[in-house]
Amino acid sequence: MPVIVVEVMPKAELLDPAGKAVAGAVARLGSTPFTGVRIGKRFELTVDGEADAAALSAARELAESLLSNSVIEDVVSVKVAAE
Amino acid sequence: MPVIVVEVMPKAELLDPAGKAVAGAVARLGSTPFTGVRIGKRFELTVDGEADAAALSAARELAESLLSNSVIEDVVSVKVAAE
Repeated sequence: MPVIVVEVMPKAELLDPAGKAVAGAVARLGSTPFTGVRIGKRFELTVDGEADAAALSAARELAESLLSNSVIEDVVSVKVAAE
Repeated sequence: MPVIVVEVMPKAELLDPAGKAVAGAVARLGSTPFTGVRIGKRFELTVDGEADAAALSAARELAESLLSNSVIEDVVSVKVAAE
């Protein structure tokens, strides 16, 4: 069955304490090219039927209402997964 | 600065209780085309410098060692984010 992927990240202007902790751990590992880490969520929605425009629009609505908290998070992507 | 995105999902053969709970909430909302939800993580690694092959390979190593628990999770994608 097709899958729609929804990606949610904490807003850029907010602190992300978990991301900060991981960034600290990365830095302690020694030389890495990474200076920052932010952690968000990735949802896989299994679609019963076709992943058409209607399903994508339902996913977009769900992403804004149920899957993200618009006070602190942004929906960065809603797309059909390559199978 | 360029960003490398790492995506981690729970292994397909494992239960995902949080995903199940969200799938239940989705079903209670009424008619939706979605039959299942799985929840994973999305990391954004800020790269100090170029997001070249070396940075990608460092990100891949980090994804396997620090950002995912290989007992219960799979790294599904490591790629440079479109700016």
